[in-house]
Amino acid sequence: MNNNLIYGKNPVCEALEKNPKRINKIYIQDGVSFDNRLKKIVELAKYNKIQIQYVNLQKFQKEFEQKVNFQGVVASVASVELISLEDFLSQEKIGYKRLVVLDEISDPHNLGAIIRTIAAVGFDGIMVPNHRSCPINATVEKISSGAINHIQIIKTTSLSASIDLLKKQNFWVIATQMAAKDNYYEIDYTDMNFALVMGSEGKGISKTILNKADFTVKLESNFESLNVSNATAVILYEALRQIRTKEKLNSK
Amino acid sequence: MNNNLIYGKNPVCEALEKNPKRINKIYIQDGVSFDNRLKKIVELAKYNKIQIQYVNLQKFQKEFEQKVNFQGVVASVASVELISLEDFLSQEKIGYKRLVVLDEISDPHNLGAIIRTIAAVGFDGIMVPNHRSCPINATVEKISSGAINHIQIIKTTSLSASIDLLKKQNFWVIATQMAAKDNYYEIDYTDMNFALVMGSEGKGISKTILNKADFTVKLESNFESLNVSNATAVILYEALRQIRTKEKLNSK
Repeated sequence: MNNNLIYGKNPVCEALEKNPKRINKIYIQDGVSFDNRLKKIVELAKYNKIQIQYVNLQKFQKEFEQKVNFQGVVASVASVELISLEDFLSQEKIGYKRLVVLDEISDPHNLGAIIRTIAAVGFDGIMVPNHRSCPINATVEKISSGAINHIQIIKTTSLSASIDLLKKQNFWVIATQMAAKDNYYEIDYTDMNFALVMGSEGKGISKTILNKADFTVKLESNFESLNVSNATAVILYEALRQIRTKEKLNSK
Repeated sequence: MNNNLIYGKNPVCEALEKNPKRINKIYIQDGVSFDNRLKKIVELAKYNKIQIQYVNLQKFQKEFEQKVNFQGVVASVASVELISLEDFLSQEKIGYKRLVVLDEISDPHNLGAIIRTIAAVGFDGIMVPNHRSCPINATVEKISSGAINHIQIIKTTSLSASIDLLKKQNFWVIATQMAAKDNYYEIDYTDMNFALVMGSEGKGISKTILNKADFTVKLESNFESLNVSNATAVILYEALRQIRTKEKLNSK
């Protein structure tokens, strides 16, 4: 986490104004005086739903090394460019767009492995919420083997509103759920823009998102539910299998 | 690694005679005097291809806490029962047997995740070599979410000889390789006993094993090769999809 940091009130404020989506989290030292600039930082962070963590002096110094004058404010930023859903949707593309949406995945190893799989199947990107989700940090980048630079990373302040927007823009929303009636291989992935929503291993997908889904699908298991990165790989490769099989049929 | 340890010459010697497959590794303190019992331990370990690590006094004491008289010898053992391929093959079963064979997978996270997937699809077990492979330790058990107790774990001193034995016993050997001609979904998994061989991410499957394979299959990727636990999940779930699809057809 020690790479990709922005130090000081003015630089953090500027980053918040210019590219808020890139900011994972803001750290403020306990007891630092709240001048107008710091008030503005807190305001902009709240507006953009960026988490603020207050840290005591000792931890603050240990974490960020008091080498520079950073005025009690540090922002950690993503090492890759993050885009908005609107930007993603406005991009021209021949053929379908295929997305993975992660609902509260907090483990960087899973996030990195999922990004690697999306690059492997050649799909478009991933959408993660600003809140209650793993930040796009150095661990994610490492685990993804650099795949993070090969797909689009979309950040959203409201997963629910973004799902609504996707549906309006002709995307089909597929959610995974242990209790679903259909198996993941019983739907046709070849002929649509889709957003595959994966939930956390413990909690699954939130009810609000589940209710918006056009399809819910399950992965059969004789044991517990699969690890989320394995489950994502299984479904994405099934989609690719169907796409390749159809292409082969059409080329005959 | 501090659970599942056997201390002292006689206990280690006994474990080597009675259940050598359970032993992951033997630690011997540098400079300890080689009496007949220790010589016997080294001999039996070599015979069973169990790794011996010589450790200096300081590290030895730090690692194993000098609370008991362990005479400079400690063995780490698996927390689950390991069986031989002969035992596995002699077990009666109605229907086909399906195995995953791991060629030099050293990461306990991958090994644990693969064991969890095998339990999820309800296949029979996993075979790992004694040498150059991750021991079945507490990390593997934890990552597998306890799935380690739901499948059979086969240990072998020679992967190559074990593959030969499997083929003699009517198993088809499927190896994964980036350069393979066929995609993993282009073979029929439903009508055979099979052993799916997965190699390490860096090195792949050794040439000796590749040459023995009845099928080699690939997973298409636009990026690097997939993480080995994700790749295993994709192939095993494709096998399960084919099995379920056939069952559904037959029941009509």
